[in-house]
Amino acid sequence: MPTYRLDLAYDGSGFNGYARQSGQPTIQGELETALETILNTPVATSVAGRTDAGVHAHGQVVSFQLDAEVDLERLRRALNGLVGPEIAVLAASEVGGDFDARHSATWRRYRYLINTAGAQDPLTRHITWHVRRPLDPPAMTAAAVAFIGEHDFTTFCRSVVGRTNVRRVTELTLRGSDELIEVWMQANAFCHQMVRSVVGYLYDVGRGFSDGSLAADVIEARDRAAVATVAPPHGLTLWAVGYESRS
Amino acid sequence: MPTYRLDLAYDGSGFNGYARQSGQPTIQGELETALETILNTPVATSVAGRTDAGVHAHGQVVSFQLDAEVDLERLRRALNGLVGPEIAVLAASEVGGDFDARHSATWRRYRYLINTAGAQDPLTRHITWHVRRPLDPPAMTAAAVAFIGEHDFTTFCRSVVGRTNVRRVTELTLRGSDELIEVWMQANAFCHQMVRSVVGYLYDVGRGFSDGSLAADVIEARDRAAVATVAPPHGLTLWAVGYESRS
Repeated sequence: MPTYRLDLAYDGSGFNGYARQSGQPTIQGELETALETILNTPVATSVAGRTDAGVHAHGQVVSFQLDAEVDLERLRRALNGLVGPEIAVLAASEVGGDFDARHSATWRRYRYLINTAGAQDPLTRHITWHVRRPLDPPAMTAAAVAFIGEHDFTTFCRSVVGRTNVRRVTELTLRGSDELIEVWMQANAFCHQMVRSVVGYLYDVGRGFSDGSLAADVIEARDRAAVATVAPPHGLTLWAVGYESRS
Repeated sequence: MPTYRLDLAYDGSGFNGYARQSGQPTIQGELETALETILNTPVATSVAGRTDAGVHAHGQVVSFQLDAEVDLERLRRALNGLVGPEIAVLAASEVGGDFDARHSATWRRYRYLINTAGAQDPLTRHITWHVRRPLDPPAMTAAAVAFIGEHDFTTFCRSVVGRTNVRRVTELTLRGSDELIEVWMQANAFCHQMVRSVVGYLYDVGRGFSDGSLAADVIEARDRAAVATVAPPHGLTLWAVGYESRS
């Protein structure tokens, strides 16, 4: 059976998250309904990152199998006609039969935007957390170093019983200006609410509420109660997903 | 009388332009109503750039005189409480009595965003013109050179009888990537619809509809009919206003 890959971007503001939920507007619901309308058959999709309610995507990846060859550019345009402008299908391609958007992914990369200016920027308010206070980016950057590498991130996860919270973080960096801080985080995978919990912790460090020199201990504690703040969803964007071989 | 300066940003999507119009949502209407509510007196403002319906601002400047000293940070916060989140007062300051946001300005700088990717980006769709076709940025850049300097821009203006259309353009450059083109334009002042008409012309050059090597002739023609396309307002943002002395 041919296997297809869709690359998506979306404004998550009006959706109750990626994953389909009965009676709720979701990205998966919109996409699978549109696929079924166009292809005249139910389609089950796999997704690289199940983003939470209000979280956005710049480079989400979805895959599905179909018992037919399709004209991919026509499919892409037809999908955009049904799911736009909040959701955009950036690309549609045929991939190898062993490709699965979720299981084949080797890394996910997220961006979180924090605005510390005296007023919220009206043009980016839908994708930026406005915190109304100065932060200390050097202290946040110093604390971020402790997250690099393979750790049990139970402190930063809404845990699922019986599932590991061990993840391998390859990047956690701050960029941008003092007034618009970009937090970039990349890992092989993320547990539930992990980026928002890590950003919430860095925010607590940046405002002097937590001592960033203890970051390694906070991770080591494996205690969800060790972190007070979860950053709100609208500042978070799933930026890209990688499928490099693990060789 | 003390003179005050406000620096504004706004998402122009929901407004019928900057200038006050009876019964229409406008930036000036919202701002002056909020000023009157807070200060308990009617306030008449001057503005650096009277943006059209749907045009945004990142660094608009407004000034007004008032027969009283005010706590500027309290005023700024109170204004934001009334006009946000579509409008933000970024800064409030007292300035010299001869300062007028419109007449003292020595330059205005605009940004226009054009997305040529196969699909519109959901996260920037409110500030970007999506043109659905590849353009030729080198040809556009070559044509842009003809605009630099002092010219009669009647070709690119919705003219007002009895007013000159002579303006001094100091920058017209393209940046960004092939898929997200940023057009930056700076001049001492702009006539009505000038940036959108210039961008519309560059778009016609970029898609091969106009011959960019004739740009100087198109300017010289002083004929509004010589330009076929006016770029839509939502891609345009008033980026900054300068008040350097003209020495």
